[in-house]
Amino acid sequence: MATGLLTDLYQLTMAAGYYEAGKTQERATFELFFRKLPADRNFVVAAGLQQAVDYLLNLRFTSEEISYLRTLPQFAHTSSGFFDMLAGLRFTGDLFAVPEGTPLFPNEPFLTLRAPLVEAQIPETFLLATFGFQSMIATKAARVVKAALGRGVVEFGTRRAHSPEAGVLAGRAAYIGGCEGTSNTETGMRFGVPVFGTCAHSWVMSFTHERDAFEQLQKLLGENTVYLIDTYDSLEGARRAVSLGRPMWGVRLDSGNLVELAPAVRKILDDGGFRDAKIMATGDLNEHKIHELIAARAPIDLFGVGTELATSADAPYLGVVYKIVELEVSGKKRYTLKLSEDKRTLPGSKQVFRYADHDLLARSTECPSCPPGSLPSEALLRPVIIGGRLVEELPTASEARQHAAESISKLPAPCLSLFESKNAWPVEVSAELECLYERVSEGVAR
Amino acid sequence: MATGLLTDLYQLTMAAGYYEAGKTQERATFELFFRKLPADRNFVVAAGLQQAVDYLLNLRFTSEEISYLRTLPQFAHTSSGFFDMLAGLRFTGDLFAVPEGTPLFPNEPFLTLRAPLVEAQIPETFLLATFGFQSMIATKAARVVKAALGRGVVEFGTRRAHSPEAGVLAGRAAYIGGCEGTSNTETGMRFGVPVFGTCAHSWVMSFTHERDAFEQLQKLLGENTVYLIDTYDSLEGARRAVSLGRPMWGVRLDSGNLVELAPAVRKILDDGGFRDAKIMATGDLNEHKIHELIAARAPIDLFGVGTELATSADAPYLGVVYKIVELEVSGKKRYTLKLSEDKRTLPGSKQVFRYADHDLLARSTECPSCPPGSLPSEALLRPVIIGGRLVEELPTASEARQHAAESISKLPAPCLSLFESKNAWPVEVSAELECLYERVSEGVAR
Repeated sequence: MATGLLTDLYQLTMAAGYYEAGKTQERATFELFFRKLPADRNFVVAAGLQQAVDYLLNLRFTSEEISYLRTLPQFAHTSSGFFDMLAGLRFTGDLFAVPEGTPLFPNEPFLTLRAPLVEAQIPETFLLATFGFQSMIATKAARVVKAALGRGVVEFGTRRAHSPEAGVLAGRAAYIGGCEGTSNTETGMRFGVPVFGTCAHSWVMSFTHERDAFEQLQKLLGENTVYLIDTYDSLEGARRAVSLGRPMWGVRLDSGNLVELAPAVRKILDDGGFRDAKIMATGDLNEHKIHELIAARAPIDLFGVGTELATSADAPYLGVVYKIVELEVSGKKRYTLKLSEDKRTLPGSKQVFRYADHDLLARSTECPSCPPGSLPSEALLRPVIIGGRLVEELPTASEARQHAAESISKLPAPCLSLFESKNAWPVEVSAELECLYERVSEGVAR
Repeated sequence: MATGLLTDLYQLTMAAGYYEAGKTQERATFELFFRKLPADRNFVVAAGLQQAVDYLLNLRFTSEEISYLRTLPQFAHTSSGFFDMLAGLRFTGDLFAVPEGTPLFPNEPFLTLRAPLVEAQIPETFLLATFGFQSMIATKAARVVKAALGRGVVEFGTRRAHSPEAGVLAGRAAYIGGCEGTSNTETGMRFGVPVFGTCAHSWVMSFTHERDAFEQLQKLLGENTVYLIDTYDSLEGARRAVSLGRPMWGVRLDSGNLVELAPAVRKILDDGGFRDAKIMATGDLNEHKIHELIAARAPIDLFGVGTELATSADAPYLGVVYKIVELEVSGKKRYTLKLSEDKRTLPGSKQVFRYADHDLLARSTECPSCPPGSLPSEALLRPVIIGGRLVEELPTASEARQHAAESISKLPAPCLSLFESKNAWPVEVSAELECLYERVSEGVAR
């Protein structure tokens, strides 16, 4: 797997610069975090660690890639030694990260990466795109699942995802965020995520009569049959499904006014003796529409959510950043920060301690004691890769989903609102970290 | 390249159903289009054909993929013959498509795909995700480029893209839409797109003094040097860049009030004898902010646009659909349509004829004559794959970009507005196509 060029060019020009400046032995510590929550979110569900680890363990440059780089004007003055170094580059550093499925808040690191400067710089782009995207989708899924109040939600959005591969990863992230599964078959095979799907309108339209389409589908799927009843007329479709008198899982509605249609379809199913048959609803759904459907007591058992989930349409990006916080030259540590307007960073390697009702953002060297009477805290950042080697197998997507469900259930009600709850979960900064910030920002080299 | 499972599961259950129902010899025609324009768009720039063609020509199922499918409950009643068929499946059909870079309007096909039912059904998910995403990004790029009024725009958004691979494709699509290039190195190598990038804040912060960082950068890049001047203080950064007295491309501003900073930086550069040095601006830009900066006469020469471009943040998806329009059984043709509320489709294979001031959506068998005095029309859908074989090499990304620029320049001014212009480009439906719709919708089998 060639992965070296999956990055912004400036990571590679900087790598060349570090090489030319004799800085390849310096060890840098970077942290990946977001500065503020996206609209209407009170937490973000961390996701993407598996792909980040796969990337770091496989990072390398092929000779074809290096030949391409040599053609670029940005490397006109770069010496051959740099390209030789790239050819042998492997990730030899350390990665600490929060487990996938962990709810995070502003300024809390998803990960701390410590490695020789070049190895720490090049992965920036891949790591940001991986954590930002999957975390955003897992977070959106958690919202949709919350709105569904115990009814199942399945992710159906690959067709509108930002490329087929984004669809595969969206299915994974949505599952971690709480969905029952996905329509994406590749997600199923690659990550062991349950897959869902029976038929589309084209199936119905490929038969001369809707009845033939239903009969053939039932032969194929038996008790797993989901009749798609809205191709021509939803109520007639429901009657036709019932009239076949064959085992079915239920029916799917993909258009029309679901508040009116769902009870009418329910009645047709019940009157026809199919009291156990279920109703699935799809078609431009999101957490707010699901909330309304449930408030209107629409008898829907399973929601399929596509476009808005697989693109996190109301908040299509998470403002993750990857910032250098420490630099070690010949064993001597220097703390770094950025003072640009509105884009300040806290210096030094950190740890997040989670208490029952708040987090403490502290220096990684701190060992904060619990306030009397409170439960002991949990340190969220854990070793994942040490010296370029994986410490232990990562949790599966299913385990990450379980972890997300448990972690989210411990958050207070205001955090779970579909709208912004100011300071729903306080993140305090430790006195030691504050002190370091003051000290470094005063003495920062200009 | 194994690609079979990159699809929604229901495409595969339907394929199994077609097989079991003895419909594998039926040939279906599907069209891919969108029903309405996203907010504030008056056209969509078609992009993604290259990836769609690569997919169709390489579509296959590995034995590992087939073994996985056999484990799914949805295939419990499927006969072995289906899986044998999958193992040998290749795309043998025909693809007609509009060239990448072509502006399209609602209901106009990006492509017409005609193939045996199974081969036509399975690609749906991949095709939608590919055309929808890349077209959305190319369209966003065209907006940003339009706002920049001749100043260059570079795509810098991989870090916020929906996965690293989405970033690679966003860089390609943004280039087709009119950007000068991208920061994504892989996009550069894979598609021959110009790549941009010099250094980030971490470069500056990795040195004890900003001056050292600048000196080292200049040694590395020479006349291509872009000093990033806002890590600590933008104006001091500009003075420091000038004080080195070495050749540079210019400076980059990534934060602060650009309307105030850009002229102040320009003055420092000019006073220091660097009248040819350029100013690049980055940092949460979009078409509206660029429009304001230019209206305020901010002396900015090049814009780097990241997050909002690579995610098309204000319109993060395009509602593309893939609908069956014809079915041919033993040489007999049947036209299909869907009557669901608000989701109607026009039956039959189509062609788009582009005139000087409008389009005509017609049946593919029509040969409309030009109204007297008007320029002859152009037929947008052209053969790409016939009988599973590529007709000729597709245009490169650079050629598609050229085609987009020329095509967009021919659109009337209202089409180019950054806001909605009602009916800026009329799309008429031919009398023959209207007639077919009436005929089929009256006689549609229920």
